[in-house]
Amino acid sequence: MLVAQVGEFGLLDRLRAIVEKQDDTVLLGIGDDAAVVTYPHHVVMTTDAMVYGIHFREDLIGDVAIGYKAVVASLSDIAAMGAKPMHLLITLAVSQTQEVEQLEAIYRGIKIACDRYDVTVIGGDIVSTPGPMMISVTATGTLYAQQPLKRSGAKTDDLVFVTGDIGGSGAYIDYQKHHDRVVLSPEDIDALQRRHQEPTPQILAGELLAHFKGCTSTNDISDGLASELHEIAAASGVGIVIEADRLPICPAVRHYCKRTQRDAESFALYGGEDYQIVGTVSPISAGALLAQAQAQGIRVSLIGRVIEDTPQVTLIDHGQHHVIGKNGYDHFRQKEDE
Amino acid sequence: MLVAQVGEFGLLDRLRAIVEKQDDTVLLGIGDDAAVVTYPHHVVMTTDAMVYGIHFREDLIGDVAIGYKAVVASLSDIAAMGAKPMHLLITLAVSQTQEVEQLEAIYRGIKIACDRYDVTVIGGDIVSTPGPMMISVTATGTLYAQQPLKRSGAKTDDLVFVTGDIGGSGAYIDYQKHHDRVVLSPEDIDALQRRHQEPTPQILAGELLAHFKGCTSTNDISDGLASELHEIAAASGVGIVIEADRLPICPAVRHYCKRTQRDAESFALYGGEDYQIVGTVSPISAGALLAQAQAQGIRVSLIGRVIEDTPQVTLIDHGQHHVIGKNGYDHFRQKEDE
Repeated sequence: MLVAQVGEFGLLDRLRAIVEKQDDTVLLGIGDDAAVVTYPHHVVMTTDAMVYGIHFREDLIGDVAIGYKAVVASLSDIAAMGAKPMHLLITLAVSQTQEVEQLEAIYRGIKIACDRYDVTVIGGDIVSTPGPMMISVTATGTLYAQQPLKRSGAKTDDLVFVTGDIGGSGAYIDYQKHHDRVVLSPEDIDALQRRHQEPTPQILAGELLAHFKGCTSTNDISDGLASELHEIAAASGVGIVIEADRLPICPAVRHYCKRTQRDAESFALYGGEDYQIVGTVSPISAGALLAQAQAQGIRVSLIGRVIEDTPQVTLIDHGQHHVIGKNGYDHFRQKEDE
Repeated sequence: MLVAQVGEFGLLDRLRAIVEKQDDTVLLGIGDDAAVVTYPHHVVMTTDAMVYGIHFREDLIGDVAIGYKAVVASLSDIAAMGAKPMHLLITLAVSQTQEVEQLEAIYRGIKIACDRYDVTVIGGDIVSTPGPMMISVTATGTLYAQQPLKRSGAKTDDLVFVTGDIGGSGAYIDYQKHHDRVVLSPEDIDALQRRHQEPTPQILAGELLAHFKGCTSTNDISDGLASELHEIAAASGVGIVIEADRLPICPAVRHYCKRTQRDAESFALYGGEDYQIVGTVSPISAGALLAQAQAQGIRVSLIGRVIEDTPQVTLIDHGQHHVIGKNGYDHFRQKEDE
């Protein structure tokens, strides 16, 4: 069924039916000029857009996963602020000849993320475009503590940490596009695929870090570890040094790189879309952070330290110091095959 | 200068410089994973997207006005909920070959609206698209009263009101596309152009209505009066009867229609983008509403009444009753020349 056959209002009704739910904090949800919500505390807000062909491709990710991932990208930002995700507004730009069933599948993915992470769609907008499909997600959250976790608090001698493992999403794109005849174990393929298609926003880690006194800065990894570290360095006015052999690279990325003579560190630094949290912690508190994270089943790795320097990022690899560029995923400067 | 020359981060810096400002309710503004804001009361949220070629066209509206109008469309929704507009998140989807200067002009329009209506841009996202430019604005507000103004409260015997005048924006599009050789006075051309390019969101009216006890429902007019009345009728489970000779049609629309043998009521009912508020008021309070509005310099007209009926809208024109369709601006069903 085509979008043109059901019209804007018919499409709205169908998509609304997929995501609508009861939520005590939603005084008025989808269906009026605006939604009305209530928060116990300061409100965190972010918006994140994805364009078909730029941020997602049919051959790399299914429709349900597109919806899921569009939500996760926003929740990841909220988590990295030390806030509990609460509400979503979804804007869809679609062509008249798009299949309604495809949009419903995307909304089922949105629904899965909403149920899994306890957030509610409270509204949105649907517009027609002759261009590629676009999904824009505005997410809100409420702070766990009195203050948000910002990029700007890193201090000299702080240690740099990162949650989970990194590089998997970027390596999956590379695998699919250039090396899908490389022999990888089903477990490795599955591991890479899940990191690309079904990433986990670090909401538990965000809660832990919000309550943890020694955490001085955080950033979520959407554009790549190098880019996010640059942002912390610039916002905090410090230098950052990280060690290559401390990077928690996804094991499947190492296996893939071994078979293809590719550089696993590149995926870790520049791959992007890991949706982990990178941040800094005062040196005296680092041990406590690792212990508390372990107790809650959250993986946290120390990967480097903050130095008094111009805002740049240095990688130590086999004893060599390399000043590394931002070079994260810049949508306007990407190469054709990225 | 092209977008590709400055890159995503360079573009962000330039556009941020245009709209950033001091605001006591913004604890953390543009530049981190998310913004942090604080509200005195329940929060109203809405999002509104505009696509180049669908919602705006170069020949009908300049770049500054595009930015201004994108903001106004969202503020109009907030006002119609009985809320004071507070914060904006702006998402831009642009091509790599777009002129940065054009985007800066759009942002100057956003800035004008922000200053005029006392709202603050707290964040957003910029993404690349091979398709047409799109601007999506998420707006928040805080309720003036304990309860929002909804679509669903209209009751039998209530009277129907509308603020300001209507039809001007739709007539301007028609004038530009089909009849720009029609002789109109400079005052009439200016009146139509301002209604299309620089509409006024009904924020004062929203505040008045929020505090006014007898107001039972409201809706902002973005898709056309007929469509908005249908939404009130459907949400409230009532019928609505309006009288053609009571419609506050913009005088310039009447002049234009007289010279072109066009139907002024059609522009009033289906033109859309008037950004006025239509609503219902209990019959005993209608006089007080008119008096209070007049005292504040807000134009309010009574145009019909609510009846016990199936949710439909009836127009009385020269004594004839016509059941009229929704037929507002449906982006997916629009004709080529709409």
